[in-house]
Amino acid sequence: MRTGRQVSGFLLALAGAEAALAAEGMWMPGQAPALSARLREAGLALPPERLADLAAAPMGAIASLGGCSASFVSPQGLVATNHHCVLGSIQFNAREGRNLIRDGFLARTRSEELPAAPGTRVYVIEALDDVTAAMMTGVTPRLTGAARVRALEANRKAIIAACEAEPGRRCEVRSYFGGAQYWRQRMLEIRDVRLVHAPAGSVGNFGGEVDNWQWPRHTGDYSFYRAYVAPDGRPAAYAAENVPYVPRAHLKLANDDLKDGDFVLIAGFPGVTERFRTAAETEGWYGRIYPRQQRLLADYSALIARETQGEADRIAYASIKAGADNYAKKIAGQMAVARQFDLVGRKRASDARLGEWAARPEHRRTHALAISNYDSLAAEALAADEARLVNQTLNRAQLLNAARTLYRWANERMKPDSEREPGFQERDRQSVIDRLSVIDRRFVARIDRAILAQALAEVATLPPAQRNTALEARIAEIGLDRLYAGTRLTDQAERLAWLDRPVADFIASDDPFIQLAVAAYAQDMAAEARRKDLEGRLDAARVAWMGAVRAHAAAEGRLLYPDANGSLRFTFGHVRGRPTRDGEAWTAFTTAGGILAKDTGKDPFDSPPALLAALREGKWGPLGSASLGTLPVNFLSTTDITNGNSGSAVLNAKGELVGLAFDGTLEGMLSDWWFDEATTRTIAVDQRYMRFVMERVDGAAGLLAEMGVAP
Amino acid sequence: MRTGRQVSGFLLALAGAEAALAAEGMWMPGQAPALSARLREAGLALPPERLADLAAAPMGAIASLGGCSASFVSPQGLVATNHHCVLGSIQFNAREGRNLIRDGFLARTRSEELPAAPGTRVYVIEALDDVTAAMMTGVTPRLTGAARVRALEANRKAIIAACEAEPGRRCEVRSYFGGAQYWRQRMLEIRDVRLVHAPAGSVGNFGGEVDNWQWPRHTGDYSFYRAYVAPDGRPAAYAAENVPYVPRAHLKLANDDLKDGDFVLIAGFPGVTERFRTAAETEGWYGRIYPRQQRLLADYSALIARETQGEADRIAYASIKAGADNYAKKIAGQMAVARQFDLVGRKRASDARLGEWAARPEHRRTHALAISNYDSLAAEALAADEARLVNQTLNRAQLLNAARTLYRWANERMKPDSEREPGFQERDRQSVIDRLSVIDRRFVARIDRAILAQALAEVATLPPAQRNTALEARIAEIGLDRLYAGTRLTDQAERLAWLDRPVADFIASDDPFIQLAVAAYAQDMAAEARRKDLEGRLDAARVAWMGAVRAHAAAEGRLLYPDANGSLRFTFGHVRGRPTRDGEAWTAFTTAGGILAKDTGKDPFDSPPALLAALREGKWGPLGSASLGTLPVNFLSTTDITNGNSGSAVLNAKGELVGLAFDGTLEGMLSDWWFDEATTRTIAVDQRYMRFVMERVDGAAGLLAEMGVAP
Repeated sequence: MRTGRQVSGFLLALAGAEAALAAEGMWMPGQAPALSARLREAGLALPPERLADLAAAPMGAIASLGGCSASFVSPQGLVATNHHCVLGSIQFNAREGRNLIRDGFLARTRSEELPAAPGTRVYVIEALDDVTAAMMTGVTPRLTGAARVRALEANRKAIIAACEAEPGRRCEVRSYFGGAQYWRQRMLEIRDVRLVHAPAGSVGNFGGEVDNWQWPRHTGDYSFYRAYVAPDGRPAAYAAENVPYVPRAHLKLANDDLKDGDFVLIAGFPGVTERFRTAAETEGWYGRIYPRQQRLLADYSALIARETQGEADRIAYASIKAGADNYAKKIAGQMAVARQFDLVGRKRASDARLGEWAARPEHRRTHALAISNYDSLAAEALAADEARLVNQTLNRAQLLNAARTLYRWANERMKPDSEREPGFQERDRQSVIDRLSVIDRRFVARIDRAILAQALAEVATLPPAQRNTALEARIAEIGLDRLYAGTRLTDQAERLAWLDRPVADFIASDDPFIQLAVAAYAQDMAAEARRKDLEGRLDAARVAWMGAVRAHAAAEGRLLYPDANGSLRFTFGHVRGRPTRDGEAWTAFTTAGGILAKDTGKDPFDSPPALLAALREGKWGPLGSASLGTLPVNFLSTTDITNGNSGSAVLNAKGELVGLAFDGTLEGMLSDWWFDEATTRTIAVDQRYMRFVMERVDGAAGLLAEMGVAP
Repeated sequence: MRTGRQVSGFLLALAGAEAALAAEGMWMPGQAPALSARLREAGLALPPERLADLAAAPMGAIASLGGCSASFVSPQGLVATNHHCVLGSIQFNAREGRNLIRDGFLARTRSEELPAAPGTRVYVIEALDDVTAAMMTGVTPRLTGAARVRALEANRKAIIAACEAEPGRRCEVRSYFGGAQYWRQRMLEIRDVRLVHAPAGSVGNFGGEVDNWQWPRHTGDYSFYRAYVAPDGRPAAYAAENVPYVPRAHLKLANDDLKDGDFVLIAGFPGVTERFRTAAETEGWYGRIYPRQQRLLADYSALIARETQGEADRIAYASIKAGADNYAKKIAGQMAVARQFDLVGRKRASDARLGEWAARPEHRRTHALAISNYDSLAAEALAADEARLVNQTLNRAQLLNAARTLYRWANERMKPDSEREPGFQERDRQSVIDRLSVIDRRFVARIDRAILAQALAEVATLPPAQRNTALEARIAEIGLDRLYAGTRLTDQAERLAWLDRPVADFIASDDPFIQLAVAAYAQDMAAEARRKDLEGRLDAARVAWMGAVRAHAAAEGRLLYPDANGSLRFTFGHVRGRPTRDGEAWTAFTTAGGILAKDTGKDPFDSPPALLAALREGKWGPLGSASLGTLPVNFLSTTDITNGNSGSAVLNAKGELVGLAFDGTLEGMLSDWWFDEATTRTIAVDQRYMRFVMERVDGAAGLLAEMGVAP
């Protein structure tokens, strides 16, 4: 999943007769038995219950890269994922004269494998356990919001600490169904990850931004890592003597012809969806918050463009500006799709159905009340969210943000670790250091100052009660000139040296940004307390509201799946194209001929000459599809994925790997809030194309042999 | 079928896996028994032999309008055809305050029906008889080319004269398989034709030139005539007491859901195809003749544009210029498609297969010789065709053309009618008068003069032997000034008065254009004699060559169909979309939603408000397609049609009317020379859309009841 662009009007003209495909749903592995009949009917040939078994294939072979999904494809720890998921590691290993992004990379022996970028992890899911009861210990309806949040935080920390006591484990407790359930995901955290193979950038990113979110697509978005552990089998930092990790299960590559209409199942880690939001919340987000957020991002980007003088400035702010632009574009796209599909209208209709049911006499005192409670709190939350969005623009000023982080750290570290704010615990130390360090490469005082001035003007539009007036007053007192002239936080060593210094040192400091952090602290904490109290009250109300939603679904015999939350899920559907404009359609597959037709020799359509030659030769061998009569490249399926699913294994009815999911079509922008079965499609790279390029272009026969599909 | 436009590059990127559809073939009704197995396999539910019976449904219901196809759809002579086929009659009946083109027309009673435009005919095919033997009487291989042509002409005239001896009949003898066969088509010629119903122009021509040759398409291209005969049942001119003609058979409208993949059969009168041309001829046409023709047309159009001064000039030359532009565009499109499909390469490959077979020892003295004979004559014919093309530009000068026609008429009328040149017999009198009359409305002396000057410059590029040097010398002698100042042929009465005057009057005339006609005559006749001799030799050679082609096909078990020649044919295939670009496709149907999506309120996408309202209401009743879940509008099928097929009935497996063919997609431009099964599609209007508009928008319940499908 990548950044978006505007959609055109044709989506409204879709033929309306697409049969219901039952493709909606990011299911928890444990829901597989309940879905048994549907899975079988859809075409799964494995016993459906097998999907609940995290120790066996196929689910035992699924891994997370944290932000991307992946899977083991050999007994020697070989991991397949998307090219765009390993891009950081390719970049990290690129050198003058060794342009790995352009040329790709292949380790011909284990010893040639390259260390992945720092922080790269392979997470192996060992267990998913329901910890709702443990999370709810001491959480009574009578608690204040703040107390509820504190209690939940304390319980969560205790559960995680106990779980992570076992060496090499990373544990997460996530909320499901809006807090109605909590599950703990226990993972083996593999820290020695090495880059094994990536195709040329013009294969792995063929079409680039032009084709992003688009169909027809012809991208070879695959790459390989290998997971290593210490000789004793435990996770360890990179070391020469480490050995390949032997996964509990690995996927086999399919040799059957994957065809239009075939069953497929995708397993991975979808990030965030908001499908349980009410119509009122949807209206608030699409009518107020997203438009304002988009405007704030556009202003931010325009300011950077205005203030940039010369190459050094440009390089320093390139990634920040690109991030703002991409996000603004994504929000614009999301708003456009929502308008075209009448997202709010759909939500209203579904709320109305729930409301009608809840208005029955037997539900009036319970569910109807829960709905109205939730609605009033949600309105309060929307206002708070908007204010927070605006206040956060102040933290775009990087030194102010750094100073506030450092002072918060100083305050938090006085508490026992278990009581510290999440993000400020010892386990977060490295990521705090990383964030403080990166400033060095992307800071220009003059530009930062202009950003701060812009943010101050922005927060001035809020009522005083929603602002940090103490911070604003102190900034005015010091003045921007003195602020930037007088600070020593521009020096990285100085900045990092503040970590772990006592609160008193901050209070005594004459560094103007440190002074701002101290001045802001009391109101920051008060705002946080209010936010947490609201969060706690909202949480309780949401659990009750979700009770109504779930009871309604149960009454109608509908099985619900929880919103995506970064945990392991599966989705299933079929290989299938879709109507586009009236009289036109997307077909399920793209093929070799499409690459030749698209190739212009210029970025982003500049395939390697060896690939073009091989495609022109057209000798597909067993990799050609009998049903298509040529080599498949990418395919569409009626499955339900989102950000985080990138790199997910696509499996056939037998649980064999048929492809890797890497993108969605434009309706994916809608599907974070609403899944439209008629239009939403997942884009995957066909493993036959991957094998063809590996075999004929990149000479990766050894890897293919390791995967059991020697040419 | 209508005029064309350029095609884009995507056609080359077609997925290559479209299964062979056996859709090629414009079959003669008499070939149905030989096709029996194929027709049944394709899905025809009628006994295939039935298609050979011209007296029974469905073929007995098929009629020709001369240039368009049609069919009887009620026992009271109601004829369905395309809107664009009756446009002349709509125009003819339009008046100030009665904009029938825009508003459409519906006769609520028989008495409200309007006379069709003069010359409108409904031809009912009574018999198709093999007259090869009669045509070959006296045609021996030893005849000179000229003698062969004379003999064939004499035989044809005799056959036609005998056939037309029966009152109310029109008979034609056409050559099939390049002169290897001749069939006589005997037709009842109905001369009292009345306009019954046409939808609004924005329905019948929805999409206009923008959508012409395009898919997706949403055109309601249907209209109705009624055929009338004298009370005694014989064809007669328009008369109040005439009665509706009772056809031998009429088609029933289908009530079953026509679906993607269903069998369809189209019966009509395809005009001209050139599928038996050799590679060398194809190269000559696409490499020399078409490019020159296109250039000549472009020059012609540019000259008219340059010379046009004011509204009167513009109106006078609008249709001539539009005709030149459209034809130039069509040729350009045809050349572009041919290049993209490598027409010449395909022809070469098929010639090579024939050549290989003919090179076998047993065929060397017969078929191989026939092929080489034909090839050398075809090269000679190409050069002659090009010269003729250039010389014909002189006849763009309308008075010169009129004078030559008149003088030719004077010479021909001295012979017995049966010996007169075709086009100059008594049966052609009215069309000659029509052509002489129309000049009045589209002639401006200044422009005509410039056209003549341009043509003179063009013919000057030919070698003298290929020119009419006597004509050119006489023009030079008179001078263009005197030519236009001195003629009285600008006066219509004067022009028409020359018809039937003796040759001596011409010779004695001082009208400068008449003098030119006299001066040109001897060389014109000599050129014609040379042309006919070449034609005769070519005809003999082609018959021998076709013998090789047919023997080769027979040896391979292939059934051949003759090139289109305006006679009754059927073609069969299936309702089916097609891949377009890699990863994209056209679906078989367009639907109501597509009209709403395309409608802009502006020409050519300005549907009548009543239609938009009815479509938005979406109550399809039994006219909705169960498989589509909405109202179908147009559909594609894998059938083989060309110009002349416009208005053809599209029948389902039971022989019921499911639509009217009205256009092809761009590959239709290729299919005049080569049928590409993977890409060529026919576009038809679905009769359900027609019925919906008739019922809900135009209030034509009476007509629907007459067709047996009362709402």
